[in-house]
Amino acid sequence: MEKGILFVVSAPAGCGKDTILNELFKRTDKAGYAVSATTRAPREGEINGVHYHFLTREDFSEKIKNGEVLEYTEYCGNFYGTLKKSVDELILSGKDAVLKIEVEGAMNIKKMFPEACLVFILPPSLEILEKRLRGRGTETEEKICERTLQAKNELDYAKNYDYLVVNDDLNDAVEDVLAVFRAEKLRRERCIGLIEKVCGDLN
Amino acid sequence: MEKGILFVVSAPAGCGKDTILNELFKRTDKAGYAVSATTRAPREGEINGVHYHFLTREDFSEKIKNGEVLEYTEYCGNFYGTLKKSVDELILSGKDAVLKIEVEGAMNIKKMFPEACLVFILPPSLEILEKRLRGRGTETEEKICERTLQAKNELDYAKNYDYLVVNDDLNDAVEDVLAVFRAEKLRRERCIGLIEKVCGDLN
Repeated sequence: MEKGILFVVSAPAGCGKDTILNELFKRTDKAGYAVSATTRAPREGEINGVHYHFLTREDFSEKIKNGEVLEYTEYCGNFYGTLKKSVDELILSGKDAVLKIEVEGAMNIKKMFPEACLVFILPPSLEILEKRLRGRGTETEEKICERTLQAKNELDYAKNYDYLVVNDDLNDAVEDVLAVFRAEKLRRERCIGLIEKVCGDLN
Repeated sequence: MEKGILFVVSAPAGCGKDTILNELFKRTDKAGYAVSATTRAPREGEINGVHYHFLTREDFSEKIKNGEVLEYTEYCGNFYGTLKKSVDELILSGKDAVLKIEVEGAMNIKKMFPEACLVFILPPSLEILEKRLRGRGTETEEKICERTLQAKNELDYAKNYDYLVVNDDLNDAVEDVLAVFRAEKLRRERCIGLIEKVCGDLN
């Protein structure tokens, strides 16, 4: 069984990251999200290890201390995060694991998972991003300026990513990310063992 | 206008390289072969610079000496080859240039064109390659052994290529190469200027 790849996907807010990934998962069954961990109580019907890994607060804190948590956040008094183990399980099953995560978290993951492949999604321009945010009509002018500035700061990190995808046309962007997922597997560094395998008994 | 990429594609004989590329060109108009140069006389209807660059033997030899020829071969007393200029013209027009070339030629091109991207097509196994060659029924047993051995030697070079594509299923192999062509353009090293462009006036 060929191992999957951990893909880390980042984008400034408003760049359509979620839309791209939702569409991508419709077009491929070779990639998925790793099961998240949380300290909140399971809701009815939720199965441990399927919907979430349900942990006590002590367990979660212990795992953070031991470097077993790739990224986490606290929300409404509960921890939510991704266990290194969950990603390992997914990629060992041959699937690619996708992590949506902000730029600083992505840099940390690259340290813990040097073989991770980092994909950054960019808006066609900050001007267009600003227009898109304004077009929603849901945010104050101040908030829009703040988010555009934040996007600009996040774009500083893009140079540390392996691939840059511009979300101008949604379909193009989805096909771009799919091509990245497909091609990355074929990179020499990732499949050098293939040559020996092909030579087989004649080696 | 974004510059195209020079893709060098190599494969041992019998791996389906031509079939893959012919099929690929049906599915994309973003890549093409560079116009070849030759010392043979133009045939009726052939246009200089379109079908071939027609050169005198002296011109061709001069260009070889000056390092202006990426690769060439002599056949029936005439030179056939690829001028560096032809590749430059194609990639400057925004198209990707594809060069089919054997392994040692590919290593030379990487030296002259460090930004070239090298793709190696492998058979599923040497055993299967041998069977395919035998299945054609056109070659002697001795010739088949010779070609399999040559394939094995060529596979030694695969580790110097950027991408390895196995031609097990033709459609998969074509989609793999298409994904490589698409994803390679998105690699950070190739589009680092994009970040500045996106920031635009807000930079």
